[in-house]
Amino acid sequence: MNIVLASTSTLFGGNYLEYLTDEIVKLFAGIDDIVFVPFARPCGISHDAYTENARKFFAKLNIRVKGLHEFEDKVRAVNEAKGFFTGGGNTFLLVKTLHEEGLMTVIKQNVESGKPYLGTSAGSNIGGLNMKTTNDMPIVYPPSFDCMGLVPFNLNPHYLDPNPDLKHNGETRETRIREFLTQNDTKVVGLREGNWIRKIDNRITVEGSEFTRIFEKGKEPYEIPPGSEL
Amino acid sequence: MNIVLASTSTLFGGNYLEYLTDEIVKLFAGIDDIVFVPFARPCGISHDAYTENARKFFAKLNIRVKGLHEFEDKVRAVNEAKGFFTGGGNTFLLVKTLHEEGLMTVIKQNVESGKPYLGTSAGSNIGGLNMKTTNDMPIVYPPSFDCMGLVPFNLNPHYLDPNPDLKHNGETRETRIREFLTQNDTKVVGLREGNWIRKIDNRITVEGSEFTRIFEKGKEPYEIPPGSEL
Repeated sequence: MNIVLASTSTLFGGNYLEYLTDEIVKLFAGIDDIVFVPFARPCGISHDAYTENARKFFAKLNIRVKGLHEFEDKVRAVNEAKGFFTGGGNTFLLVKTLHEEGLMTVIKQNVESGKPYLGTSAGSNIGGLNMKTTNDMPIVYPPSFDCMGLVPFNLNPHYLDPNPDLKHNGETRETRIREFLTQNDTKVVGLREGNWIRKIDNRITVEGSEFTRIFEKGKEPYEIPPGSEL
Repeated sequence: MNIVLASTSTLFGGNYLEYLTDEIVKLFAGIDDIVFVPFARPCGISHDAYTENARKFFAKLNIRVKGLHEFEDKVRAVNEAKGFFTGGGNTFLLVKTLHEEGLMTVIKQNVESGKPYLGTSAGSNIGGLNMKTTNDMPIVYPPSFDCMGLVPFNLNPHYLDPNPDLKHNGETRETRIREFLTQNDTKVVGLREGNWIRKIDNRITVEGSEFTRIFEKGKEPYEIPPGSEL
């Protein structure tokens, strides 16, 4: 497999996908068009507008982008695609749409057959076993929380450390993931902004500028440096 | 109806339920025992430990507390109860348990018949039409997101204003609720910590120390002061 699952599309103060450019060039080497999956619709923007954002970035790399929503037969479009990019937004909306259109399994099979896959945020969540560690609001009810399982764990994108100055009693991210582990025995990779997961064949590493926080049932959370194998 | 739906159980630096004491005394006037619904299990604590927390507070008001998990026949326990308190924790776990045990509708009917109901955080979320505006992580998959609809809108407890200093690209609470409104035409009450919703008969007001932020489809969000009717 040939996969990048990034915490975020955009670093604070940066431009869309900019910090990932080198990795994206390597991921899609030799490929001149990809299919973009726009269903997570950040801030509710249209599929067309969202695809246009992706198109502008990839034009600089001489890679053409088609939105998956543009195809009459989406399953066929996935089967004929050379590579995939799923953007962020709302994970519930993304997962609901993929299940309802019968696309979750088809994209999984195509990526497992070797086609390159880029995910950011919600698009990375669906690379995990299921979406039970998303940060998103459950604005729609998906028929299942199961995802593609391209990696044998769950992701928590935009992982955020507790803020000791916050005078607020909402749960911290760490508390939420610990609650997940009381109900599930699944490793969770807390992926800080600036980091991404890289899978080449069967080797999975975590890359980027930050340490990554790992949560496992029955263990204290621990940190691993960039380049570590997962 | 006779209902209190509070944003949080505990104010920053305060003790459990302390700031709500006067309202709780009025809510449960003339009642000497209530049933506690512990299924949201904050931080994964046991039903017994969670019920003990509630028991300690209510002992000061001379109100006895029984945990709903202690009853063999939970539906009967609800039907025979004099009042209810549902504590916070994980809304997905709470809603899954209530649906699976057939309790969501039974509690709703008992509250609609006039029995007093106190909810905090997740326990307030289930007083709304559905749980689609919870902040919680989807650690388990409930058979439905529908809730009791004791009030004709949704709640967002622990409502948090955007932090302009945060160098992080996770969505703000306001962005999340706006995404909800792209998919649903349901009013959302953003309940800051320190505030609660009070329903007496058919009159619904928002009470507490803070303004409350209201989100409706096709309108800019707006603020209403404590004491406003909803």
